[in-house]
Amino acid sequence: MQGAILVLSGPSGAGKSTIINNASENIGEYYFSISTTTRKPREGEKNGVDYYFVTHEEFEEGIKAGEFLEYATVHGNYYGTSLKPVNDALSQGKLVIFDIDIQGHRLVRAKMGDFVTSAFITPPTLRELEKRLYARATDDTSIIERRVENAKEEIKAIGEFDFVIINDEIPKASNQFATIANAARLKQNSDELENFVKFWQN
Amino acid sequence: MQGAILVLSGPSGAGKSTIINNASENIGEYYFSISTTTRKPREGEKNGVDYYFVTHEEFEEGIKAGEFLEYATVHGNYYGTSLKPVNDALSQGKLVIFDIDIQGHRLVRAKMGDFVTSAFITPPTLRELEKRLYARATDDTSIIERRVENAKEEIKAIGEFDFVIINDEIPKASNQFATIANAARLKQNSDELENFVKFWQN
Repeated sequence: MQGAILVLSGPSGAGKSTIINNASENIGEYYFSISTTTRKPREGEKNGVDYYFVTHEEFEEGIKAGEFLEYATVHGNYYGTSLKPVNDALSQGKLVIFDIDIQGHRLVRAKMGDFVTSAFITPPTLRELEKRLYARATDDTSIIERRVENAKEEIKAIGEFDFVIINDEIPKASNQFATIANAARLKQNSDELENFVKFWQN
Repeated sequence: MQGAILVLSGPSGAGKSTIINNASENIGEYYFSISTTTRKPREGEKNGVDYYFVTHEEFEEGIKAGEFLEYATVHGNYYGTSLKPVNDALSQGKLVIFDIDIQGHRLVRAKMGDFVTSAFITPPTLRELEKRLYARATDDTSIIERRVENAKEEIKAIGEFDFVIINDEIPKASNQFATIANAARLKQNSDELENFVKFWQN
């Protein structure tokens, strides 16, 4: 049994981290994909935990060497996902969870669609998203406004996802996430199915 | 929230009924779609429980009136699924479970794909299928042989299904089925998503 990929997208403030943490006991072992970025670490952020922090030059070397499954530039910084740890985890049969944006989802699906289940996690309304972003008070107003504008665009892409989790009650949303993660593990890729049919007929 | 459809296919002898019965406590309320047929009831079979038994003429009236979601002829008898009870159950938000063949799966997916999750349930090997069919001794050798030949063809279509459940251990297979059924409930159809986006943005 080879591993599987679960892509999570959704606006900052949707509650993705909380949901993953709540569900983690019920979804078995997984590898949470850590992004690589050229932006500077914020206070408290650790290399290899929050991100892999690299220089602009290192990132561009990686691009040239084809090391990224997906990458993008956001406000002048690179963000990307290295292919190697993902492939390592998959070959160990693990569920690999990605927290990436809708553009990243498209790229991962295009390259590894056979392994992918995806879920878009969203607060119940745009108003609620704004409320949560202001309440947690970790961002400037201008950044919150930008996040809200992004969310307004991103929500239009929910039809591209296998599932949409509306996070109005955290326990419910966490249960839904666990169900989706466990189903994602059961997805077989076409190589596996082909081998199974050969094995089965003998 | 509108309902969802879970299509189960797989050879006779795969253990579908056992798996559904085992899982039924963990999958919430569902409507098990009852097929309509023109074949005569076997001993112990009840109308409205095992099948809806109708005459050849009644079935053909139904076809003309567009009452069937899918139907096929097998050994001179009609078998089909009436659309009305399915639509009623869906509009009540229920999970509708179908036990149909790969041809039925194709037809249901073509007509109602937006609602459909599907799983193919199979014994681990063709040998094991034969063994089980002979062990349960409810069919003549000629029927068993025909079932085995059918299974050899049907297994080639497993790539068309969202999930494949290999029934080598009943408790494991039943758990996998429950996970899939619960994930199937979370699938939103495109009308729902469209309405949600409109609601969300206001």
